[in-house]
Amino acid sequence: MSTGLWLVGARGSVATTAVVGALAVRAGLAARNGLVTESPAFAEAGLPPLEGFVFGGHDVTAMPLAKRAEALGQAGVVPRHLPAVLADELDQVDARIRPGGRQEGETQAEHAARLAADIRSFAQASGVDRVVVVNVASTEPPAEPHPAHASLDALETALEQGATVLPTSSLYAYAALQAGSAFVDFTPSTGARLPALDELARRERLPYAGSDGKTGETLVKSTLAPMFQTRELHVQSWVGMNILGGGDGATLADPHASLSKTRSKGRSVAETLGYEVVAPVHIDNVPDMGEWKTAWDHIAFEGFLGVRMTMQFTWQGCDSALAAPLVLDLARLAARAAQAGESGPLPALGFFFKDPVASSEHRLATQYDVLVAWARDLAGRSA
Amino acid sequence: MSTGLWLVGARGSVATTAVVGALAVRAGLAARNGLVTESPAFAEAGLPPLEGFVFGGHDVTAMPLAKRAEALGQAGVVPRHLPAVLADELDQVDARIRPGGRQEGETQAEHAARLAADIRSFAQASGVDRVVVVNVASTEPPAEPHPAHASLDALETALEQGATVLPTSSLYAYAALQAGSAFVDFTPSTGARLPALDELARRERLPYAGSDGKTGETLVKSTLAPMFQTRELHVQSWVGMNILGGGDGATLADPHASLSKTRSKGRSVAETLGYEVVAPVHIDNVPDMGEWKTAWDHIAFEGFLGVRMTMQFTWQGCDSALAAPLVLDLARLAARAAQAGESGPLPALGFFFKDPVASSEHRLATQYDVLVAWARDLAGRSA
Amino acid sequence: MSTGLWLVGARGSVATTAVVGALAVRAGLAARNGLVTESPAFAEAGLPPLEGFVFGGHDVTAMPLAKRAEALGQAGVVPRHLPAVLADELDQVDARIRPGGRQEGETQAEHAARLAADIRSFAQASGVDRVVVVNVASTEPPAEPHPAHASLDALETALEQGATVLPTSSLYAYAALQAGSAFVDFTPSTGARLPALDELARRERLPYAGSDGKTGETLVKSTLAPMFQTRELHVQSWVGMNILGGGDGATLADPHASLSKTRSKGRSVAETLGYEVVAPVHIDNVPDMGEWKTAWDHIAFEGFLGVRMTMQFTWQGCDSALAAPLVLDLARLAARAAQAGESGPLPALGFFFKDPVASSEHRLATQYDVLVAWARDLAGRSA
Amino acid sequence: MSTGLWLVGARGSVATTAVVGALAVRAGLAARNGLVTESPAFAEAGLPPLEGFVFGGHDVTAMPLAKRAEALGQAGVVPRHLPAVLADELDQVDARIRPGGRQEGETQAEHAARLAADIRSFAQASGVDRVVVVNVASTEPPAEPHPAHASLDALETALEQGATVLPTSSLYAYAALQAGSAFVDFTPSTGARLPALDELARRERLPYAGSDGKTGETLVKSTLAPMFQTRELHVQSWVGMNILGGGDGATLADPHASLSKTRSKGRSVAETLGYEVVAPVHIDNVPDMGEWKTAWDHIAFEGFLGVRMTMQFTWQGCDSALAAPLVLDLARLAARAAQAGESGPLPALGFFFKDPVASSEHRLATQYDVLVAWARDLAGRSA
Repeated sequence: MSTGLWLVGARGSVATTAVVGALAVRAGLAARNGLVTESPAFAEAGLPPLEGFVFGGHDVTAMPLAKRAEALGQAGVVPRHLPAVLADELDQVDARIRPGGRQEGETQAEHAARLAADIRSFAQASGVDRVVVVNVASTEPPAEPHPAHASLDALETALEQGATVLPTSSLYAYAALQAGSAFVDFTPSTGARLPALDELARRERLPYAGSDGKTGETLVKSTLAPMFQTRELHVQSWVGMNILGGGDGATLADPHASLSKTRSKGRSVAETLGYEVVAPVHIDNVPDMGEWKTAWDHIAFEGFLGVRMTMQFTWQGCDSALAAPLVLDLARLAARAAQAGESGPLPALGFFFKDPVASSEHRLATQYDVLVAWARDLAGRSA
Repeated sequence: MSTGLWLVGARGSVATTAVVGALAVRAGLAARNGLVTESPAFAEAGLPPLEGFVFGGHDVTAMPLAKRAEALGQAGVVPRHLPAVLADELDQVDARIRPGGRQEGETQAEHAARLAADIRSFAQASGVDRVVVVNVASTEPPAEPHPAHASLDALETALEQGATVLPTSSLYAYAALQAGSAFVDFTPSTGARLPALDELARRERLPYAGSDGKTGETLVKSTLAPMFQTRELHVQSWVGMNILGGGDGATLADPHASLSKTRSKGRSVAETLGYEVVAPVHIDNVPDMGEWKTAWDHIAFEGFLGVRMTMQFTWQGCDSALAAPLVLDLARLAARAAQAGESGPLPALGFFFKDPVASSEHRLATQYDVLVAWARDLAGRSA
Repeated sequence: MSTGLWLVGARGSVATTAVVGALAVRAGLAARNGLVTESPAFAEAGLPPLEGFVFGGHDVTAMPLAKRAEALGQAGVVPRHLPAVLADELDQVDARIRPGGRQEGETQAEHAARLAADIRSFAQASGVDRVVVVNVASTEPPAEPHPAHASLDALETALEQGATVLPTSSLYAYAALQAGSAFVDFTPSTGARLPALDELARRERLPYAGSDGKTGETLVKSTLAPMFQTRELHVQSWVGMNILGGGDGATLADPHASLSKTRSKGRSVAETLGYEVVAPVHIDNVPDMGEWKTAWDHIAFEGFLGVRMTMQFTWQGCDSALAAPLVLDLARLAARAAQAGESGPLPALGFFFKDPVASSEHRLATQYDVLVAWARDLAGRSA
Repeated sequence: MSTGLWLVGARGSVATTAVVGALAVRAGLAARNGLVTESPAFAEAGLPPLEGFVFGGHDVTAMPLAKRAEALGQAGVVPRHLPAVLADELDQVDARIRPGGRQEGETQAEHAARLAADIRSFAQASGVDRVVVVNVASTEPPAEPHPAHASLDALETALEQGATVLPTSSLYAYAALQAGSAFVDFTPSTGARLPALDELARRERLPYAGSDGKTGETLVKSTLAPMFQTRELHVQSWVGMNILGGGDGATLADPHASLSKTRSKGRSVAETLGYEVVAPVHIDNVPDMGEWKTAWDHIAFEGFLGVRMTMQFTWQGCDSALAAPLVLDLARLAARAAQAGESGPLPALGFFFKDPVASSEHRLATQYDVLVAWARDLAGRSA
């Protein structure tokens, strides 16, 4: 099965790293570290191989992919020598990236139609069996509620009347579903999580997944919180501090945009523990951090007879290097889910997300068990 | 079901904290924080309630339990006011503590017989339905192998001949099993883990469990290692540094004794990940730490395309406060296992141990699932 | 020389700890840890001994000092047994605490006159040679500028006309100086740092000092920054995160009030290094921290050939225990300065402050050298 | 003034980084970060400019300097592109590196004579005014005492008789002094610190300095310890844990060799504080750390009324990048000292060392003041 991976934000750090990585792995230039679906647990699930992927996408910037890759090589996100080695193939991908932003005079309906047409053209031109759209664009602020979100009818009526009712991430989700593609939201944005889009996905028999890739601090939180829970150690407070640079840092320096992120980051602890915890999360833009992120968490908890103890951790990660393989994993899994006839939200993919759709399960180990069980189930279904 | 909990090392910090805590919980003076078996998952398992426990034990020191409790109150291990409130009940427990050490002129066989007689007298005098022996004495150095360990026959022959062949912890295990009691080893010592003692346990239809309570650094390790594993992040090194004071610190300052501990601590990471990792573990005796322990771990790992990242954590815990409720949990679980007719090692209790008997599963969440499934199974069995 | 120490915020944690500590030291119940002026370097400076201090103060709450001390004993800020031992003496101090808040119908001039009268009465009743007023009340928001601050004439005219022109901390400074007392501001509030009050201090030949006691994170910053500076290691960013509870935590949870604090904390790094640094500082109110504060700092710096390196530190301190001895030190030093005829700001006391008056020197070691040199100079002056 | 810098261990990481850096700075390809003597405080001291340096040295390996530099570029110790740009100049330096090890059949006297001859030839061939020898070879185990160390006479007699009496580092120091060069020991080895060599240095009117460059954990220790001291905060324990890879890690994995290092690292805290402190230091060889070192320190201290508090820090540094500029600084300073007629130990250079000769001052800020005062004094002396 050949698969198209259409990346929204195709020239960003995460997308570029995913493309460079997939090309490198395919060429035997890199190991498969960080790719969850390359473990033996997924060998029988009928996932499309990375080797058969074709890449394209939307973006609002014009910097060529090969140049972006070069910069990521300088920053230590990808091996320094790879971008030059892969320059030709990166140029080919670059040629399949279309302008994503709204053009002057375009209604939102026209914008969506153009985006969907781009995805359909990509599918036809590349001859792939199926396309998965993954949103790796910048975080957007929390969406304003609108009556047109309530049903597909209401949404389509509003769009036909020329109204602007969808946040950008949802517009891409709408276009993806219109073009017959599964949609995965790797950001904390709204994406497909509106009743109208859920309805569309089910009507079109397409699956969707999200939101907000779990790559660093929250990954650790969702690993540690069950330890406190199963040991009956009562967490009193869990403070998180994140410093990061890069484009992500700049976006999140805007308190309005970062609100989506801190909300998404804040949910897992209380939901896992089953009680409210003082759990402030800060995100600071520190430009010299570049593509790297450091998180410091301080956890205070009460043990037997009320004795107070603490744990701290520092996580020093490269977000794009953590996110990129998950994007490839999700593309493989969503493509297979679509092929197997699943439609609507995919709660079994909660392992990958800070804020999983259709699931309130945040415990990482349990999420992994659910994922593996689902993969085992897929193994028995028609390819 | 009333249960006797016989503590080897009954005047040590862990035992004293367990007794103070059980008495306080029973009297409504403290919450049930830290007690794993008080969570709803164990409500139907038919575990003997803490309220019905009677405490006794062996020790080699003479300091009265109430005085030891007073010192733990000063050190912040138990609430300052509790020891005075519980002084009478602590004195009653103290009256049931027997001298544990070998007496002049005693052969090891005679020593064992005396210990077993102490346990039997306790059972009769207190009228409990069943006794569980839990070893919370100091860590002993790794045992010298001896041919008499190979079978119960060989062991009994050697003992009859007046030989000294068992490490102390195993002598207590032997006495416990002879006295008809389940045995739990909360230390990294040999305990019941000799073929001869396994044979005895099976013959007497008694269960045993161990070794080395998982309370701090290793608890976190066994929680975090699966995260790296399921995310396919390749751990390159995992360095651990522990500083602690108290009696435990003094014992572990002896490199020979600490060897049991560092071996026990070192196993979980490589066994979980499935490959060898540079994973040195240090333990330093820092007397001013008192009953408190600080562990610092540094983990280096390789992600997608070989990008190197790190995680560090600092754990600041009170070992006795972490261990004591687990001792009570284990006593409840082992008593119930004995009642339900289980004999030999109890791998389902691996959740509590650094080095679980009859199991190479170290992943905390999986261990918890196994434990809960076992508890559910117990629920269906005769009380 | 007997000295009166008049504490603004006399029932707060810092003041209570200072009083308990001074009484305990005097009674031989505690060592002189944390008291800078008890080191041999100050032995010849003619400082008034702690033994001769009499305590009083203003506060807006009514909780008796002995009860406040009891709570601090429970929280581990002072030894548990001390408050009971010192109860009588604490009650005597409590009897000398006067209500500080503005009363209904009072103009600011009347309020100041009442506060000054309280201080004068205290001086007469206790028969001390000299009174020093130290402000340890809650942090107040940055003051609004007002034309009446520009000169003593302007200020007195405005007050006579019934206007309210001074922030609370400055009102206390005004009252202190009117009553013939030296004034020390241990908070980041405005205090005596207005041209009008500087003029008053000089006219009355009284010294003043401040602001904002340097007790934790900033203490470490002012120690480490010179290391980077003298080694020519270029600091790129210095991020600080503080979590604390208690009354201080609650006050600083108000972003307006915390602005004074974060401003005060942010200055030292750039002023020491001589260039601008990205140096965000956060303060979070985490109630379960109680009287304890944890700070995490992350410093990124560039070495030879632009190699990027990092340092992190975690400081886990008890603010009141760190601040209280400095309050006593400052009272001794300010009393001696007044006796020796110094008037106006005391830049030699910068060692104690985050934001020293009349000094832009933040390097701790240099500040100490300046302090010791000044103490040596005092030694030669008439007592 | 043109100066020759003769490096013992000229192909090691520190030496290679120093040479690459000096060449890069000279060519305007890099900033002067990390070079202490480039700050304005040293502008008038008459130090020889980096621009006039000629490099040579001894080593026991044959790997060309340009290749070593290439590897350091890959490891992120020097900018990736620099080694290629500077390849020709590196080859020129490489051509001036002589085999350092003892040859078969050579007595120690003959070995020393050969080494001295190498240095003299270098001086003549390069036409420099003066040569400084800096030892940056691997750490050697603590030296065995020998009667021949007691005086120059005894030493020369023993050498003439064909005896082997000097540890390697001291042999190089002997050769350097014989060749008329100042000697600086950047390692914790014995170097010039023997009465016999001190006598030789004074006779030849040559200065020497050392030992053990203060680049990381100890740098921070010597910065922080005075903070605790001047604030009268009583340090109870100071635990240090170091993990590192590279050649240094491999050398220090040998407990005998690491003894010199841990001794050198352990001294500063107690000497600064003036009392004994529990201060264990560990060094672990963790090969995946490569050229990078991480140190974790845990400091427990007692404040006012005995309240216990803690501080932790993590230092993540690149040792070669920290050491290399100090080597250049020391060469400039030692050359100027020799020119100005100083002979014997140079205590004013203690700022650079963990274990300074002829000084027990470890406080970094004070060491800096001493250094700057000495530089100011040099300014007034003949060039």
